[in-house]
Amino acid sequence: MSVTAAKGFLAAGTAAGVKPAGQLDYALVAAERSVPAAGVFTKSLTSAPPVELSRGHLRDGHLQAVLINSGCANAGTGGEGLAAARTVAAEVAHRLGSKTEDLGVCSTGPIGPPLPVSSLVGAAPDLVADLRAGPDAGRRAAEAIMTTDTVSKETTIAGEGFVLGGMAKGAGMVRPDMATMLAVLTTDAVVDSASLAAALNGAVEESFNSLNLDGCQSTNDSVIVMASGASGVEPSKDELTAVLTESCRRLAYQIARDAEGATRVIRLRIRGAPDNASARRAGMSIADSALVRASFYGSDPNWGRILGQLGVAGVEFDPGTVAIAYEGVEVAREGVMVAFDEPALVARLGGNEFAVDVKVGDGPGFAEVLTTDLTPEYVLFNAERS
Amino acid sequence: MSVTAAKGFLAAGTAAGVKPAGQLDYALVAAERSVPAAGVFTKSLTSAPPVELSRGHLRDGHLQAVLINSGCANAGTGGEGLAAARTVAAEVAHRLGSKTEDLGVCSTGPIGPPLPVSSLVGAAPDLVADLRAGPDAGRRAAEAIMTTDTVSKETTIAGEGFVLGGMAKGAGMVRPDMATMLAVLTTDAVVDSASLAAALNGAVEESFNSLNLDGCQSTNDSVIVMASGASGVEPSKDELTAVLTESCRRLAYQIARDAEGATRVIRLRIRGAPDNASARRAGMSIADSALVRASFYGSDPNWGRILGQLGVAGVEFDPGTVAIAYEGVEVAREGVMVAFDEPALVARLGGNEFAVDVKVGDGPGFAEVLTTDLTPEYVLFNAERS
Repeated sequence: MSVTAAKGFLAAGTAAGVKPAGQLDYALVAAERSVPAAGVFTKSLTSAPPVELSRGHLRDGHLQAVLINSGCANAGTGGEGLAAARTVAAEVAHRLGSKTEDLGVCSTGPIGPPLPVSSLVGAAPDLVADLRAGPDAGRRAAEAIMTTDTVSKETTIAGEGFVLGGMAKGAGMVRPDMATMLAVLTTDAVVDSASLAAALNGAVEESFNSLNLDGCQSTNDSVIVMASGASGVEPSKDELTAVLTESCRRLAYQIARDAEGATRVIRLRIRGAPDNASARRAGMSIADSALVRASFYGSDPNWGRILGQLGVAGVEFDPGTVAIAYEGVEVAREGVMVAFDEPALVARLGGNEFAVDVKVGDGPGFAEVLTTDLTPEYVLFNAERS
Repeated sequence: MSVTAAKGFLAAGTAAGVKPAGQLDYALVAAERSVPAAGVFTKSLTSAPPVELSRGHLRDGHLQAVLINSGCANAGTGGEGLAAARTVAAEVAHRLGSKTEDLGVCSTGPIGPPLPVSSLVGAAPDLVADLRAGPDAGRRAAEAIMTTDTVSKETTIAGEGFVLGGMAKGAGMVRPDMATMLAVLTTDAVVDSASLAAALNGAVEESFNSLNLDGCQSTNDSVIVMASGASGVEPSKDELTAVLTESCRRLAYQIARDAEGATRVIRLRIRGAPDNASARRAGMSIADSALVRASFYGSDPNWGRILGQLGVAGVEFDPGTVAIAYEGVEVAREGVMVAFDEPALVARLGGNEFAVDVKVGDGPGFAEVLTTDLTPEYVLFNAERS
């Protein structure tokens, strides 16, 4: 069901001809009217025109719909790119009977080429006419936002009297130039814009912002949530945040699982930092390291590389307190190596997922960061000219 | 000649049995007495015990010798590691007739295992007895500090009446766990400690700190310079800095040329930033990107990835001013793509070196950052368990 699971939302996915061979490449998720909405976007200084447009449209805390094309990022396209995004949004808004300012707009695909405006304008009537509820509509929308994701990413969670659904597309630079993580979430909970924004910020911090597949932030990263209120149920802030966080975590996990070239997902769990933000910074620094991620590919409990990354994470800690364990097997304690059965541990690291626990002190800070192994296939994929 | 080219320095390299099969693994570069010296070290919070020791010994601005072992980084070894480094240094100082506090100490190799103190203490008499001048001595010292560098790195430059020589070992994580860049430089110029430290800081900024092979800073990175004054010539600060900078740049280039798994060296030249530091930050951010470096491997003028990294470099610029050229062929101007002959350019990027010029505004800031391509071989090398 994903984005149409919550009451009050319809979705559609169609082929606008941006991608070749009639592939789905144009998606719309729409409420019946303008509803509370919130977004989190890339912090890049070279953020794409659609990101600029969506930021502006979300300033009043409301959207009626989110429009997404794959096959072209509309990034590195300057003022003409912004005008193109606005033209495309205006056409769909007109067909929906909404205002252009009530549309969120996302694009994903190669950076550089101009947005094929006439194709997208031409496909707008079909896209809007195709809007409906049900699992097939949600699935088509989720497929239309894929670049070289191999599977679509969807989630549906039922809260107490309300539902929250979502879809996402992959990070991990799934193909040359395609450098974007997008997610759209919908709920029928009753919630005002400010509470929704606060819940989304918390949820993204614990999910997408704790996902580091290759250290690259894109020009187009966007997460947008809309709340129709159609359930009539107003959850507490804590409950809404919890359900939204769990939804985002599920989508983040699916993105990691499908990361291009990767053979395994690694859960880095950092404990004992002064606070959660420091723990996350330490985890992200570990995941930044090509050397650490190559050792994950080699099923190698190479804790020295993790120690090295901790040292440059910009987090204060006493190296003498560091303990590191792979799949529960301690390999370092109080900053120095301890004996362990290496062949047995290497064998346990050969599956498609494992956990690394890193203790950096006795503070209350904790974070879990998801990453994947760095593989020769990743390099070959991304060395290929598009 | 390298480290013995300047008057007043002797060098030796021997096999202490830290590395297997009688390979050279223990080096010494010594002046006749305590002389002005300066060092630049890793900023890592988990810096290794030998780094701590050398920092302390350099506090008075003087050293008589630098002692280096390969085969063991003596990192992640805590208080015992520091005691081990001190014991080894004391033994060599005793044989030299110097004070322990006048020795710089460097170690490189796997992180974690304890320093083999008895092997190093046992080899000290031979090492000191072997000290001599001449190209063979410098070459043996340069070979003894190699880990899996495939060639030794040496340089000799004659200034006006003085000589500056040096040796280095590779960065680029030449093998599992071996994550260190070391350099020792010697000059017979007359210079005081403070001027030497200032010149070294400037030189390192423009050379080793502008080298980014895989984004990883090590626990053991060390650059040490000693000045014997034996030429009787006191160069101006500018001249000394220029010769020292050029020496460090030559060694940095040799390190890039020999980076493990790499097929080509890329010179990233950043222009138009507000200042040199911002330009360097932008260049280092580009070199941090696995995606950008994979595109270098693919001979792919994929400027969108460079634009993406500029956006997250933490440098202020107007994306509308960005121009990017590969080997002089402009592929983007004013932030958007321009037409170019792609097959011809791809062919030109197929050699073992190319330049990328990136303009980020109209400021006076310039920096050149050296990097290499990211290859499947790099990943395979670093996935191998040691």
